[in-house]
Amino acid sequence: MTETIEIAESNVEEVSSGKLSIIMFSGTADKFIPLGVLTQAGAAMGMEVNVFVTGFALLGFTKTHHDLPMSAEFAFMAPDLAKGMAANKVAGWDTMLRQARELGTKVYACSMMSGVMGLAKDDFNDLVDNIVGAATFIHQAEGGETLFI
Amino acid sequence: MTETIEIAESNVEEVSSGKLSIIMFSGTADKFIPLGVLTQAGAAMGMEVNVFVTGFALLGFTKTHHDLPMSAEFAFMAPDLAKGMAANKVAGWDTMLRQARELGTKVYACSMMSGVMGLAKDDFNDLVDNIVGAATFIHQAEGGETLFI
Amino acid sequence: MTETIEIAESNVEEVSSGKLSIIMFSGTADKFIPLGVLTQAGAAMGMEVNVFVTGFALLGFTKTHHDLPMSAEFAFMAPDLAKGMAANKVAGWDTMLRQARELGTKVYACSMMSGVMGLAKDDFNDLVDNIVGAATFIHQAEGGETLFI
Repeated sequence: MTETIEIAESNVEEVSSGKLSIIMFSGTADKFIPLGVLTQAGAAMGMEVNVFVTGFALLGFTKTHHDLPMSAEFAFMAPDLAKGMAANKVAGWDTMLRQARELGTKVYACSMMSGVMGLAKDDFNDLVDNIVGAATFIHQAEGGETLFI
Repeated sequence: MTETIEIAESNVEEVSSGKLSIIMFSGTADKFIPLGVLTQAGAAMGMEVNVFVTGFALLGFTKTHHDLPMSAEFAFMAPDLAKGMAANKVAGWDTMLRQARELGTKVYACSMMSGVMGLAKDDFNDLVDNIVGAATFIHQAEGGETLFI
Repeated sequence: MTETIEIAESNVEEVSSGKLSIIMFSGTADKFIPLGVLTQAGAAMGMEVNVFVTGFALLGFTKTHHDLPMSAEFAFMAPDLAKGMAANKVAGWDTMLRQARELGTKVYACSMMSGVMGLAKDDFNDLVDNIVGAATFIHQAEGGETLFI
């Protein structure tokens, strides 16, 4: 354990002026871990990080709490993962995303899917900066790394 | 609702000479929505858009109709999503992809997975432009934004 | 069949000096096929290929064998896929990744998720080159194509 933690800590020395864009579609709880890790790591390195939340992932950003399900195939691993996260003092995805936002990361909800799911701006919590369309986000993402989670 | 629709409409003003490539692997019905939205938005902005269909997603492009399943974890939301799509007059993914194709978007089926699934060129519908290998697609995608859905 | 195989073979003529980075998170058996195909194709073209294994996908890289499940929605297709792979003489994903590694592809396990899942360097098989943090990988991926599988 000590070794891997040391390696992780050494990462904060990486510096970048690049851009990382994440289209967050999947709504299973497990996929929110890489969202937290990647935004936090990218922002800590100095990258411009933007997140476009759409599809089922919108349920993770509402004032009303939704219990997000684990990926069906690995639901049996949920208790062990929770134990491992606690034992390794890994922050929750929302804590990591909050840290990223303090460093400038922006989170946008997809206008079309918000409409389809009956969600207005007022339904989203304070992690969401604005509601935008897909074209606006694609345009903003150009010239960087773009991931679809 | 009015607000989000206005924002979405304002997107058509974005213009780009970039390139958007999508490797479409997932075959669940929900993942075809971002395929339609992203190709349509990218093409409307003037981007070069290319789609490489592989894996289970090939089932969405055959002459024989396949009833694509929803993501297992969110299948319970299917009726509400369908209602929301209808109420917001959101076009089906295939209609959006057709609009993208009219603007130049190309759709390629993966040669290897087509073979594995017993699908020849004649088994695909008119949304598919050609059958190509992964290397050809990766080569074509270079220098732009590439998503794996 | 002959036609699609010919097209696939013609791919080896593609040459690139680009970079392909894959964040491999999903742990279902089907998603390992594109991992094998894309790394092998990218490496054969001369690209710098790097893989960052995290989440459930770590289970595919341990000395202890884990029976990886198929995507829940398409589990019924597993027997037909296996037959199609055999009939088309498609190599397993690990064979393809081994070929990619012989051409220079590097595979890294995520330090944080390894810790969470209780996996130390000695628990991984010979496909894994090293354990690194997310920031290191994001930094390395910059300026190329980056996929999240």
